[in-house]
Amino acid sequence: MNAPLDAALKAALPIPSAFDAATATVDSAAIAPFPNSRKVYIEGSRPDIRVPMREIAQSPTTGSFGGERNPPLFVYDTSGPYTDPAAAIDVRCGLTSPRLPWIRERADTEELAGPSSAYGQARLRDPALAALRFNLQRTPRRARPGRNVTQMHYARQGIITPEMEFVALRENLRRREYLASLSESGPMGARVASLLGRQHPGQSFGASIPLEVTPEFVRSELARGRAIIPANINHPEVEPMIIGRNFLVKINANIGNSAVSSSIGEEVEKMTWAIRWGADNVMDLSTGKHIHETREWIIRNSPVPIGTVPIYQALEKVNGKAEDLSWEIYRDTLIEQAEQGVDYFTIHAGMRLAYVPMTANRLTGIVSRGGSIMAKWCLAHHRESFLYTHFEDICEIMKAYDVSFSLGDGLRPGSIYDANDEAQLAELKTLGELTQVAWKHDVQTMIEGPGHVPLHLIKENMDLQLEQCSEAPFYTLGPLTTDIAPGYDHITSGIGAATIGWYGTAMLCYVTPKEHLGLPDKADVKDGIITYKIAAHAADLAKGHPGAQMRDNALSKARFEFRWDDQFNLGLDPDKARAFHDETLPKESSKVAHFCSMKITQEVRAYAAANGVGEDAALAQGMQEKAIEFVKGGARLYREA
Amino acid sequence: MNAPLDAALKAALPIPSAFDAATATVDSAAIAPFPNSRKVYIEGSRPDIRVPMREIAQSPTTGSFGGERNPPLFVYDTSGPYTDPAAAIDVRCGLTSPRLPWIRERADTEELAGPSSAYGQARLRDPALAALRFNLQRTPRRARPGRNVTQMHYARQGIITPEMEFVALRENLRRREYLASLSESGPMGARVASLLGRQHPGQSFGASIPLEVTPEFVRSELARGRAIIPANINHPEVEPMIIGRNFLVKINANIGNSAVSSSIGEEVEKMTWAIRWGADNVMDLSTGKHIHETREWIIRNSPVPIGTVPIYQALEKVNGKAEDLSWEIYRDTLIEQAEQGVDYFTIHAGMRLAYVPMTANRLTGIVSRGGSIMAKWCLAHHRESFLYTHFEDICEIMKAYDVSFSLGDGLRPGSIYDANDEAQLAELKTLGELTQVAWKHDVQTMIEGPGHVPLHLIKENMDLQLEQCSEAPFYTLGPLTTDIAPGYDHITSGIGAATIGWYGTAMLCYVTPKEHLGLPDKADVKDGIITYKIAAHAADLAKGHPGAQMRDNALSKARFEFRWDDQFNLGLDPDKARAFHDETLPKESSKVAHFCSMKITQEVRAYAAANGVGEDAALAQGMQEKAIEFVKGGARLYREA
Repeated sequence: MNAPLDAALKAALPIPSAFDAATATVDSAAIAPFPNSRKVYIEGSRPDIRVPMREIAQSPTTGSFGGERNPPLFVYDTSGPYTDPAAAIDVRCGLTSPRLPWIRERADTEELAGPSSAYGQARLRDPALAALRFNLQRTPRRARPGRNVTQMHYARQGIITPEMEFVALRENLRRREYLASLSESGPMGARVASLLGRQHPGQSFGASIPLEVTPEFVRSELARGRAIIPANINHPEVEPMIIGRNFLVKINANIGNSAVSSSIGEEVEKMTWAIRWGADNVMDLSTGKHIHETREWIIRNSPVPIGTVPIYQALEKVNGKAEDLSWEIYRDTLIEQAEQGVDYFTIHAGMRLAYVPMTANRLTGIVSRGGSIMAKWCLAHHRESFLYTHFEDICEIMKAYDVSFSLGDGLRPGSIYDANDEAQLAELKTLGELTQVAWKHDVQTMIEGPGHVPLHLIKENMDLQLEQCSEAPFYTLGPLTTDIAPGYDHITSGIGAATIGWYGTAMLCYVTPKEHLGLPDKADVKDGIITYKIAAHAADLAKGHPGAQMRDNALSKARFEFRWDDQFNLGLDPDKARAFHDETLPKESSKVAHFCSMKITQEVRAYAAANGVGEDAALAQGMQEKAIEFVKGGARLYREA
Repeated sequence: MNAPLDAALKAALPIPSAFDAATATVDSAAIAPFPNSRKVYIEGSRPDIRVPMREIAQSPTTGSFGGERNPPLFVYDTSGPYTDPAAAIDVRCGLTSPRLPWIRERADTEELAGPSSAYGQARLRDPALAALRFNLQRTPRRARPGRNVTQMHYARQGIITPEMEFVALRENLRRREYLASLSESGPMGARVASLLGRQHPGQSFGASIPLEVTPEFVRSELARGRAIIPANINHPEVEPMIIGRNFLVKINANIGNSAVSSSIGEEVEKMTWAIRWGADNVMDLSTGKHIHETREWIIRNSPVPIGTVPIYQALEKVNGKAEDLSWEIYRDTLIEQAEQGVDYFTIHAGMRLAYVPMTANRLTGIVSRGGSIMAKWCLAHHRESFLYTHFEDICEIMKAYDVSFSLGDGLRPGSIYDANDEAQLAELKTLGELTQVAWKHDVQTMIEGPGHVPLHLIKENMDLQLEQCSEAPFYTLGPLTTDIAPGYDHITSGIGAATIGWYGTAMLCYVTPKEHLGLPDKADVKDGIITYKIAAHAADLAKGHPGAQMRDNALSKARFEFRWDDQFNLGLDPDKARAFHDETLPKESSKVAHFCSMKITQEVRAYAAANGVGEDAALAQGMQEKAIEFVKGGARLYREA
């Protein structure tokens, strides 16, 4: 038996009394419906491709604007079956597995007899964990010998998988159908459609965003490595999503318990809470004694991809002594986690021995946990990082399960002072080299980055990454654009995140108000997510992403027409908007003076048509008459709220 | 007598019972000291020039870093005497008037017998207002006949006023003295000084920010109109500040009561609260029945410049009927407010009749209250705006009191859809023309702008404004970079504000979480201010503003050395940071892994010196030995928090 494993098992803390596998239930806050919303599914080319969206209904426009219908808007929905009243949720059973038929029909995987990692087997055998363990009724899958099961591999063979079709439908946001519905919305339909369908062309700095995403486009982006679909064959519950510069900017939320805080139930709750508010992916950064069991519960109940940092668990297995880490322990951990279904691994393979001294002149040294663990190991052994030297061995594991690389930024700057320094950029270059190795194996790969970077240095990061990593998707933490606001780092970093997303970053890792200070609670998780949804969406708008502006247009139209409920319901957080509005109930709208300039112009146009005069002349004449009419009609400026 | 005035007076609501002039007191929350901080004053070339700063003390660095002293940091301080325990605060008496001697010695003003506006006189006479009225023991000043008393006028005559010297000292942040103190901080003094004094050069897009601000530089910026010092001769209590692209980016907070909500006392409280957290200026946007009295209390107790939108009060005087406005009523209002000491007026003189129809194709019409009032007047009378036609008459008033223009953006976009449209840009062009007229009269002028603008269209706004308004300071609301997050518009706009500040905007008007929804409470005001301090500071860093990075460096050094209290105290909100940290008391610092790379390099350097080998060789050798030492010494990676 493995001595460190034994030690780890014996050191297991008593099971937290709060969690019991037999009675675990879903968090009611996570399944509460959104107002005026319902879950809808877009069907693909086969009935088992069902892409979820949230449909938000609107009231008609009334009064002086004419009685036009406001068709429902469809928004991207990460919340999975939790917000589908038709879905029966039992977290003890996990979610259904829409991908299972697709995986089976590819016939390139086999079901193993059980976990093939030593640690996985040991955990399964341990009776003390029975009350904690998710009751999994199947064994792990793995690629058949000699087969490669990554989405990139299929893409490079010219195959369009159901996953690729799924994400193509998802990315289009039902844009065409929505715009068509606007044309049919009433007497002013065509005008409204052209108004609400229009958006600024944007400035994408050379991205290649198509008007309509096709499955073929998805395949081609995957084949060239410019996008990834993180979808482990052992996570069949996932609703596929795509990460890439030419797709909607995505966000990631971090959860995870520590040695003494937070039970398994709380972590599942954080995941369902995070995806409710819009997290596209979730990373489980748990440390402590039940990492394995916690992760199983999360993955089985998660419709979004789950990422981990395997070195964290490996470190637990050696009781926190970095120098006792070894390739063997790490390898076993990769397999253990891959067989549970982790969709992407953060691996700090670019943190090389020679780079450690480069941090000597830094203000805040190495702030990445994974980076400092590996730095310590390198110094203790005076050897090159085993993650670097065994990188191709890691690729062999990744491709057998389709786990994506998230090549870690162990040397990211932890202060404005350290931004874009030699250490950071040296590691980025190495990540570029490793990307080529990963692609030799068709392993899907994204690159981690920023940290703390002042606004003017952000573009350099993006440009270097595009060039050195051959356009592999960039996945950044923030960056924080100043260090001076602990307690508000969701905001200091939201600024940097929106900016780097605009420049081409594909996924933004959120930061909560607790950054640098402590562990986030549910309110912090929500604040971080809403901030990052804002950043990602601001980036989509700036890039001119087709359809991104539909939501802004619909909400602003509702605002202009005083359809308050529609305004709230179309927003990222209807509850808060409604609560803030009810709170002060101003009798007089001091913020928005309603001015009927549109109405005036409609009347001017009608006048022109009726009198056979040009619009300009009509305008001049119409202004005069309108002026008179305005005053006579009481010249009411403010619409009573 | 003036009929509308009579009507206004008769319509006066009963005095809100909460406020009584005789017993008004200062808000205790506003005078609570900041932790480890004290108010200090930098003395200028004469003893009555005393520039306030806040000095934040730090603990020494202990342990393996060596015993170095961390000198106190000095930060810009907008909170006035409120945070000075030596100052006796009685809001019934107002603040002291440091500017009074400077105004007197210029001998170009005279004290009037009393208010010269009809409305001002009427309010003073009305016995019903006695219990509300601030007990002002002096009469208004005005320029002597034929004299021009603006800071721009003095600057153009080659005069350096005490106000100019004051702001020069203020802008330097005591940078030179602080850096010198770092050199003296202990055995590693020189290295620490070079570390903490260093900052990224930034990218200011052609700004001209000097390393050291001199009074002469201030004079020259004022003379060319590239900066303003808003300081009405009737606001001698103000601690002068400067607004301009080549100075620190400033922020403005809005306060103001409405007809039924919020008493005078609450407004004074909001002002003291706003400046505590860092508002450089405050605008009083009150509507309702006691605008005049409310404003007097605010100005008498405000160490920061106060702005207003005079058309709001003029509208109240005509009972809310825009078409009843007239130049005469407006003129009287300008004089009334100027004689109370308002430092800048938002005047929508660029909202011309011909531009109104340009809003016909907008999604959200005219969202500016002042803009829509004037649009309504123009349409009702079918005449050009009286603000535009009487602009030079307005200049004559401004120059007699040194009130600065804030040329209003009545046609700013209220939705992403409307950004950078024809109406908005037409008004901007007119504001540029009006700037030239104002400068003919040496009236200090800034230009208002943005609103809702997607990230990629922000630069165009800045470039157009610089060109068309001849580099007059830009003062923008946000911009909001997306419409989809009501309840979080401090964040949607914080992103745009940081960006436009980086590009050259001189002052950012804050947005609170209540934007579009309701009136902000104290918590909202604070959230808005902290967000905008972050945006302004992120902009300063990106521009490479000398000294801006000192605070980030000091805080990050404290963070790296686990000097938790110093980290909190150096931040924008020490209370929140401390509360967030105590809340979860993680036993293991999962966020920052402390890695002694600096220490290693110091030892390597010492080794090299002692053994006469080059640093590289020493490094290689040192790594080997260090590795051994590391493991022997228990290889402790994590510092216990």
